[in-house]
Amino acid sequence: MAHSYDVVGLGSAIVDVLAPVDDQFLLTHNVAKGVMTLIDEYRAEQLHSALGNPREIAGGSVANTMAGLASLGGRGVFEGKVKQDRLGQVFAASLKNLGVNYSTKPASAGPSTAMCLIAVTPDGERSMNTYLGASRELSTHDVDEKEIASAAVLYVEGYLWEAPKAKEACLKAIKAARRAGTKVAFTLSDPFVVGRYRSEFREILGDLDIIFANEDEAKALFEVETFDTVLQAARTSWHGIAALTRSEKGCVIAQGDEVHIVDAWPLERVVDTTGAGDQFAAGFLYALTHGRGLAHCGKLAVLCAAEVISHYGARPETSLRALATKAGLI
Amino acid sequence: MAHSYDVVGLGSAIVDVLAPVDDQFLLTHNVAKGVMTLIDEYRAEQLHSALGNPREIAGGSVANTMAGLASLGGRGVFEGKVKQDRLGQVFAASLKNLGVNYSTKPASAGPSTAMCLIAVTPDGERSMNTYLGASRELSTHDVDEKEIASAAVLYVEGYLWEAPKAKEACLKAIKAARRAGTKVAFTLSDPFVVGRYRSEFREILGDLDIIFANEDEAKALFEVETFDTVLQAARTSWHGIAALTRSEKGCVIAQGDEVHIVDAWPLERVVDTTGAGDQFAAGFLYALTHGRGLAHCGKLAVLCAAEVISHYGARPETSLRALATKAGLI
Repeated sequence: MAHSYDVVGLGSAIVDVLAPVDDQFLLTHNVAKGVMTLIDEYRAEQLHSALGNPREIAGGSVANTMAGLASLGGRGVFEGKVKQDRLGQVFAASLKNLGVNYSTKPASAGPSTAMCLIAVTPDGERSMNTYLGASRELSTHDVDEKEIASAAVLYVEGYLWEAPKAKEACLKAIKAARRAGTKVAFTLSDPFVVGRYRSEFREILGDLDIIFANEDEAKALFEVETFDTVLQAARTSWHGIAALTRSEKGCVIAQGDEVHIVDAWPLERVVDTTGAGDQFAAGFLYALTHGRGLAHCGKLAVLCAAEVISHYGARPETSLRALATKAGLI
Repeated sequence: MAHSYDVVGLGSAIVDVLAPVDDQFLLTHNVAKGVMTLIDEYRAEQLHSALGNPREIAGGSVANTMAGLASLGGRGVFEGKVKQDRLGQVFAASLKNLGVNYSTKPASAGPSTAMCLIAVTPDGERSMNTYLGASRELSTHDVDEKEIASAAVLYVEGYLWEAPKAKEACLKAIKAARRAGTKVAFTLSDPFVVGRYRSEFREILGDLDIIFANEDEAKALFEVETFDTVLQAARTSWHGIAALTRSEKGCVIAQGDEVHIVDAWPLERVVDTTGAGDQFAAGFLYALTHGRGLAHCGKLAVLCAAEVISHYGARPETSLRALATKAGLI
């Protein structure tokens, strides 16, 4: 069956708000250095105005992946919740400008659009304060079953489990995908998220076709201590495709008897690893939805990850399609 | 069947002769920096005396592995040719002191015992000049079929193909092993060796049970360009165990449907990578001949490799058995 979309993504709609600061700023505004802290709306507003004249860049893990998919020439649609406010418009415009369909109705009331306030100190460290706001309000009413049925793959993120309504929306989307024969891809998102929702993630394993996980996330899911035991657990206890990322060691793609070990794409300098996993998923899903084998999927994935870690920011700055064509992968 | 030996090793009997020199020494004595050059007896004598007061350490790839096996508490016997001269005695004594049986009759005439003259410059680079001497004289008469039949594994090295008589001895040993039900393990030794004897190595693949290879050697054998294609070739076109070493990336052990990815043992500082492959093989073969699964074999292998690269020289300086016991691997 021909699909209208390669991938339908369901995830948190977040705008990254970045500004350079000095260490004194972190002390004055009680920002913990180098980690991610969840904050409320009041604090978000305070910090936002304190940051002066920040850069605003649409973000969110699955949304970043959809941006990468579009950069590869793939056909994507995103479902995720913003509010009808200025940042909500920034988020929507960023996807539409890239050619990603996005028609989730923005909330007219309630919390404002989610933002991740990123204070970058001169040493390159990023201190993040995330206000989940409207992204938590994603509900089952926002899940478009027709859109899901018209895509080859549904891609969802573990982060959604942090908000009960968003989790229900995600579960509804997965069910709709299974009914329609749309494959389901899931990113574990974060080792702490896996730690909090391990048993729930394990329960839905049977409904998933593809898992994206870095080494720490995969170890947390299977509760094992070495990469090899992750690999054996994924291959023997699960039917799907495990796409396991290993930073500078590249990735391992495994499904039952099939195992591929793909090296990281050679890179002169790593500038900022933010978004590596998101763009890895973009490359992988593009190749998979274009009929490529698992080894090829892994190669395109590490190429896309390499692009995004060669500069600041979580979305590609050069055409991934041009890069992939040059590398003979498209 | 209970075996008298865990491993019988057949390889080049070489004494390493190390001395610190300055760059001027290399220029004066026409030594190419940083590479391995084969030299004749005349040049070996010249260089040996020019080196002043060098350290002499028994070496040779398979012999180093047998030393490691003994350090783990394994039962080993070595077959390889020295001459009845001073360095020949150094070589024999080194194995006997470690508890490795060694009774190959030394040559009473002909070229002297093989030596690898290693000039170490202040920048840590090692410039090697190897005189194969008596080690090339290993012949079919030196192959002890009873010893081979009494071991669980026969371990041989690709380096032997550099000497026609030694190669014949190796082929005879492999045949004897197959008749006796002794497993055959083979190290590809060096990418250039593989390049020179690729078709011959491929012909004997059917008689091998275990191959040790680093990434470059394995790529040269299968004539492929990426590690993943090596892995697929080994798994699909060959029945045996491929133990593939990847330096800081650890190793991959594969046999048909079974694949294990084992990380390198954590190490604060790499001092000298000489002998890493030899000690890797020692750990692997010890674990394999003591009934361990492939993942466990890989783990003990990377531990033994880590010990030898943490100091100068190709043989362990601390008890591998003590290290392995501490790590819970024995």
